[in-house]
Amino acid sequence: MMATPVRVGVIGLGTVGQGVLRLLHENAAEITRRVGRPVIVTDAATRTPSRARDCKLDGIHLWPDAQRLVAEAEVDILVELIGGTGVARELTLAAIARGKPVVTANKALLAEHGNEIFGAAAAKGGVVAFEAAVAGGIPIIKAIREGLAGNVIDGVAGIINGTCNYILTQMAAKGQSFGDALADAQRLGYAEADPTFDVEGVDAAHKLAILAALAFGMPLAFDAIAVEGITAVTPQDIEIAKVFGYRIKLLGIAKRHGGGVELRVHPTLVPDDALLAKVDGVLNAVVVHGNAVGQVGFYGRGAGGDATASAVVADILDIARALSADTRHAVPALAYQPDALRPLPVVPIRDAPSAFYLRLRVADEAGVLSQITAILAAHDISVEAILQREPRGGEDATIALITSIIPGHRFDDALAEMQKLPFVRAGATRFRVEKFD
Amino acid sequence: MMATPVRVGVIGLGTVGQGVLRLLHENAAEITRRVGRPVIVTDAATRTPSRARDCKLDGIHLWPDAQRLVAEAEVDILVELIGGTGVARELTLAAIARGKPVVTANKALLAEHGNEIFGAAAAKGGVVAFEAAVAGGIPIIKAIREGLAGNVIDGVAGIINGTCNYILTQMAAKGQSFGDALADAQRLGYAEADPTFDVEGVDAAHKLAILAALAFGMPLAFDAIAVEGITAVTPQDIEIAKVFGYRIKLLGIAKRHGGGVELRVHPTLVPDDALLAKVDGVLNAVVVHGNAVGQVGFYGRGAGGDATASAVVADILDIARALSADTRHAVPALAYQPDALRPLPVVPIRDAPSAFYLRLRVADEAGVLSQITAILAAHDISVEAILQREPRGGEDATIALITSIIPGHRFDDALAEMQKLPFVRAGATRFRVEKFD
Repeated sequence: MMATPVRVGVIGLGTVGQGVLRLLHENAAEITRRVGRPVIVTDAATRTPSRARDCKLDGIHLWPDAQRLVAEAEVDILVELIGGTGVARELTLAAIARGKPVVTANKALLAEHGNEIFGAAAAKGGVVAFEAAVAGGIPIIKAIREGLAGNVIDGVAGIINGTCNYILTQMAAKGQSFGDALADAQRLGYAEADPTFDVEGVDAAHKLAILAALAFGMPLAFDAIAVEGITAVTPQDIEIAKVFGYRIKLLGIAKRHGGGVELRVHPTLVPDDALLAKVDGVLNAVVVHGNAVGQVGFYGRGAGGDATASAVVADILDIARALSADTRHAVPALAYQPDALRPLPVVPIRDAPSAFYLRLRVADEAGVLSQITAILAAHDISVEAILQREPRGGEDATIALITSIIPGHRFDDALAEMQKLPFVRAGATRFRVEKFD
Repeated sequence: MMATPVRVGVIGLGTVGQGVLRLLHENAAEITRRVGRPVIVTDAATRTPSRARDCKLDGIHLWPDAQRLVAEAEVDILVELIGGTGVARELTLAAIARGKPVVTANKALLAEHGNEIFGAAAAKGGVVAFEAAVAGGIPIIKAIREGLAGNVIDGVAGIINGTCNYILTQMAAKGQSFGDALADAQRLGYAEADPTFDVEGVDAAHKLAILAALAFGMPLAFDAIAVEGITAVTPQDIEIAKVFGYRIKLLGIAKRHGGGVELRVHPTLVPDDALLAKVDGVLNAVVVHGNAVGQVGFYGRGAGGDATASAVVADILDIARALSADTRHAVPALAYQPDALRPLPVVPIRDAPSAFYLRLRVADEAGVLSQITAILAAHDISVEAILQREPRGGEDATIALITSIIPGHRFDDALAEMQKLPFVRAGATRFRVEKFD
């Protein structure tokens, strides 16, 4: 497609900024098919232009002064990724004043200055997009704002700080103290050298302020949130909670209460069969309760350069599509522009690789298992798990197994051979196995 | 707000149609605040106008002839909820030809005639929206199409038929046969009298065709999907799978494979620690793998009038906002129109009701438990779970308990009283408990 590119200026080339550049570069062909125009980074601001980075800077105009980029760069969209609430606020307000759509991942900025920033944007008819500010790659902002827009939302609760969830998960798995789990998290890069914002719940409260505004149509109310971090959680509490049938998670909770709302961040016992209890490690998860939809849940990576960049780029593409609109609905029905849909060959299921579960009924004879496993070996199929059960009453014996991942036809061939064995009864059962690692 | 209402015509007043009318009526105030204009149903088509319904029809022009509604009604948006692929196809094409945006929940229609329908819409620059066609109330269409648009999507897998998931869940929980679980599902309204489309995997394949088109930018390829239903699953397989550490779920799976794709629906063994394994009953769940975001998961109600209506109304509101746009980005930053944000009183956490977990260290004396439980009783606090542990070595004894749901201040008062008891050591630990029922 030869359409004019959408030009993006990125302020800040840290982990997320590099992820954004990488993503717009590596996924450029797909993105152009979705948007109908290329979306390219033309300008970036960094104070350390010579630092080695994990992204290509070819053809990108590097500005040492972010203010000048905002004031002067010929871009269609500005992306603020420097963090903090001082300079970031000034840059964002300057971009709005210049009439540029802004994308930001900066939850602290929005939680503390969002009313000013969104007010300024509304006054100018401008856009400030912030999918990346809450729960990283999970498209929770769009889900609440648009996907669940028909509901009166009763409440939102979420694991929205990956550092705390990692620490609590490690404490539960290893019986570690908070201090030891924190030290491990710091060593692995999951916690900052000064972890206060995370472990004291401030970061979660920033995000909760944003979620509550979206859910309830209220201004950002960060200062009104009751916040309690995870430093008081002990391995003993985690263990006793388990005895009671609960897991301990740091949750951000916003719920309607009479004509008002409850806004709180605190360690919370969650029943171990609730999906929030099962979200471990650095993953984030959010559940939303709407009066029509009931409970809807979302989980995924809440941090990291690529996952956060996924959300930043989603916002960039939303804006790019709106800028490009030549129909009244800028989002194509099937996600790609109609002229960019391409038939793809569908692989016959016989050729699709999968692990397989197989259950056979066999006569209760000597040598059965060895002949079956010999057939599997002859077809180069490894067995990951196997179970043989003796007959009950007059029944046949059962052999059940799970194979390694193999093409479907190889399994079919081996099964056909097994079914010729005299002691194998008719009617084998086989299902596919998927691991979702 | 006095702005001109957005007028909606609803074709079909079955369960979902009634849900849409109910939702647009009951949530009208919130919806107006989000969209900036009222969104009202002005017209509806039904062949049984006198049937008793669970929604208000006051002021709605009822058309006995859906064709005439499509051809003549003065509406801004048409909603197709009659199901089937014959008349629904004609109505949808007629609406597109008339230049009306269409919202549909009809997965069979889109899977089988989607290429024609989306082609016709693209030729006219028209809109066909279909969030409700896959996974009911879960906003998965929007998530893939927009929220994850920065990713090259590698694969999608989901529990996208609630009937099958209910049957498999019951078989696992009760050891029921497929036939008995199906009969129960029919009795409860979770399965149709003729359950073929569900239990043979056809409905899941309809939805998978839509997900694959969105994920990979390919035309709808329903006929190319390999489909296997759940009728061959036995309680024995479910039990053996459990021994191996797996659950059996009917999954729709679409994944890239070389330059092509795999498209398949079949019973699948899923590791029991994967989130898909934990989604039970009529719930749906979808996981998407993107090259930047990694794995993202979504779960919620996949069927039912209100959950499906939630998705239909979300589509209506998307279109309404686009029709109403007086800025280039029709979706307000904080979900509600800037002039519709309203401060809400934040309830002090002392007044927020919650269940509480409490752990006390106490001297190992007689009568400790009775004095503590007496204080709880005096504050009208019931105990849901309690654990007392004898001292280990020189340590104090531990008492841990979980209370019923009570206002925070009542718990604080009781705790303050307990802490005055001579045998209670300093440093009680208390966390809140949330149930997410």
